[in-house]
Amino acid sequence: MQPLLDAILHGGPMARRRAMAKAITLLESTRADHRAQADALLTALLPHTGKAFRLGISGVPGVGKSTFIEALGLYLIAQGHRVAVLAIDPSSSVSGGSILGDKTRMEKLSVHEMAYIRPSPSSGTLGGVAEKTREAMLVCEAAGYDVVIVETVGVGQSETAVAGMTDMFVLLQLPNAGDDLQAIKKGVMELADLVVINKADLDPKAATRAQAQITSSLRLLGLHGNPEHAHHDDTLWHPKVIQISALRGQGIDTFWAEVSEFRRLQTANGRLAARRQQQALAWMWERIDAGLKQAFRQHPQVRRLLPAMEADVAQGRVPASTAARILLAAQFGKAPETIE
Amino acid sequence: MQPLLDAILHGGPMARRRAMAKAITLLESTRADHRAQADALLTALLPHTGKAFRLGISGVPGVGKSTFIEALGLYLIAQGHRVAVLAIDPSSSVSGGSILGDKTRMEKLSVHEMAYIRPSPSSGTLGGVAEKTREAMLVCEAAGYDVVIVETVGVGQSETAVAGMTDMFVLLQLPNAGDDLQAIKKGVMELADLVVINKADLDPKAATRAQAQITSSLRLLGLHGNPEHAHHDDTLWHPKVIQISALRGQGIDTFWAEVSEFRRLQTANGRLAARRQQQALAWMWERIDAGLKQAFRQHPQVRRLLPAMEADVAQGRVPASTAARILLAAQFGKAPETIE
Repeated sequence: MQPLLDAILHGGPMARRRAMAKAITLLESTRADHRAQADALLTALLPHTGKAFRLGISGVPGVGKSTFIEALGLYLIAQGHRVAVLAIDPSSSVSGGSILGDKTRMEKLSVHEMAYIRPSPSSGTLGGVAEKTREAMLVCEAAGYDVVIVETVGVGQSETAVAGMTDMFVLLQLPNAGDDLQAIKKGVMELADLVVINKADLDPKAATRAQAQITSSLRLLGLHGNPEHAHHDDTLWHPKVIQISALRGQGIDTFWAEVSEFRRLQTANGRLAARRQQQALAWMWERIDAGLKQAFRQHPQVRRLLPAMEADVAQGRVPASTAARILLAAQFGKAPETIE
Repeated sequence: MQPLLDAILHGGPMARRRAMAKAITLLESTRADHRAQADALLTALLPHTGKAFRLGISGVPGVGKSTFIEALGLYLIAQGHRVAVLAIDPSSSVSGGSILGDKTRMEKLSVHEMAYIRPSPSSGTLGGVAEKTREAMLVCEAAGYDVVIVETVGVGQSETAVAGMTDMFVLLQLPNAGDDLQAIKKGVMELADLVVINKADLDPKAATRAQAQITSSLRLLGLHGNPEHAHHDDTLWHPKVIQISALRGQGIDTFWAEVSEFRRLQTANGRLAARRQQQALAWMWERIDAGLKQAFRQHPQVRRLLPAMEADVAQGRVPASTAARILLAAQFGKAPETIE
């Protein structure tokens, strides 16, 4: 453990990246002995984490995520930052390979010694993939990467997972907002702290129209924080919409200026720290919930009753609350009516 | 049990309403013997449920919910419907009294023998209050009410709970959309199957502007169902925005025409039945989750470890996933590393 820890914290570029890869592989292992080692390693790394800025990036396929992240990463490295790119793609376990975080998509960034790119864990549920990515993020932070980018594509709940582990969530959009291709899942837009219209040079008029539309929609469809105070608090961030062209390298500086302003504001008003605390506790409870549910599903009595019970509830033969009580009673070995 | 059941299913207006009130009180009781009776009653009622249309209505205080529901209820009764109005207000346990579903707010509707109004259960968590309301809804359906309205006010997650137990979720808005007063919580607008701009007569220009804004925002900010097919499927409902004035009785017929069209479409394409099945199963799992978490929190070993563990996670001294494993291991009496 100690050599791995030392290499992550104090190794040279090569040794550090090798150690990071090794540590993340250890974290992704499901073997009990690896799990114990991974817990020990993570706990030892923890005091050295938290200093990076955690940036979540999402957008539908074709929006230009790779091009954007490559341009951003090189821009940041030129400014003296170290950049790590992680990915969450729960669908990769189905397709058998990971699309996101694929190094071949970011040719220059991936070979840069100040960058570290890790594809999505290629198996497991979204909860499992997200947990591994969160842990990998901590390894990157401990290794001195001060900007950690977590990217995802619009599949299921992965955007929520990314927004739930980053300081800022950025949604990439195409200029043709409102069109069919633009279709994003309900609930994703409102996670965004910043909306970036990429490929704005392709259709400047459409991009400007989209910017206006999205700006007014974000304003209309609900507010960050306490709605009662939102409009009266100058220290509060309001989601913004900007235009860029990642391919031409236009607007990357504007983007980073917005991110820096967000970070400054959220640090000053204490929301950055509060968000991280909340995320850590939410993450703990999410894992507890998953563990409790797994144990429940594996309980012999529950396994025996569950299929018929689910069918009865779906067909309207048993009230859902009654079914829940019967199943809980089966696990706990109690009478159903004693379950609240 | 049998007399209560008979009165609900076959009683005259007076006897039926008395029996409904008694049944719902029984459902709300936390006594174990009442719970067993309530389960039996609910199971016996279940085959007689499901024929009503379940309509969820939400909106901020001042939007005119009571006036709207009274006008709608009387309109429906005049058309031969029987109307039940239930409410979810988790804050009522704090304020000590229920605001929503208060009969004095709907003077004419509440005394009508074809109407049944029940205020929000006045104690419990949102999950508990929602469960009681869901069960009360089944009692109303079994008693022959063919339109069940569940109303809530914009507090916390109550809109999600209402949308999760109804066939259609309607959001009431004021004409001054986008203004400070309008502030709704993030994520509520997108639950809406229909947005109703009430008090449109007060400022017709603003109402029309709000209608256009909300329409374009709903279109922009995500789609119902599968985004890939949404725009190409004629049998799919797209959220609409209409204007009414409940006080003047204007637009109630338009509103009901939209609801009827929604119902026709959702019945024809099978989504109404699918939504109900999904809701019943989601409700069962929600109650199971709540039960598992409660048992977890009450476990002596967990109670002993939890406070320090939460502090450690919040302060970044222990990784969240490690903490989850330690706590789960405490409940299950296993070694932490054996927890996945």
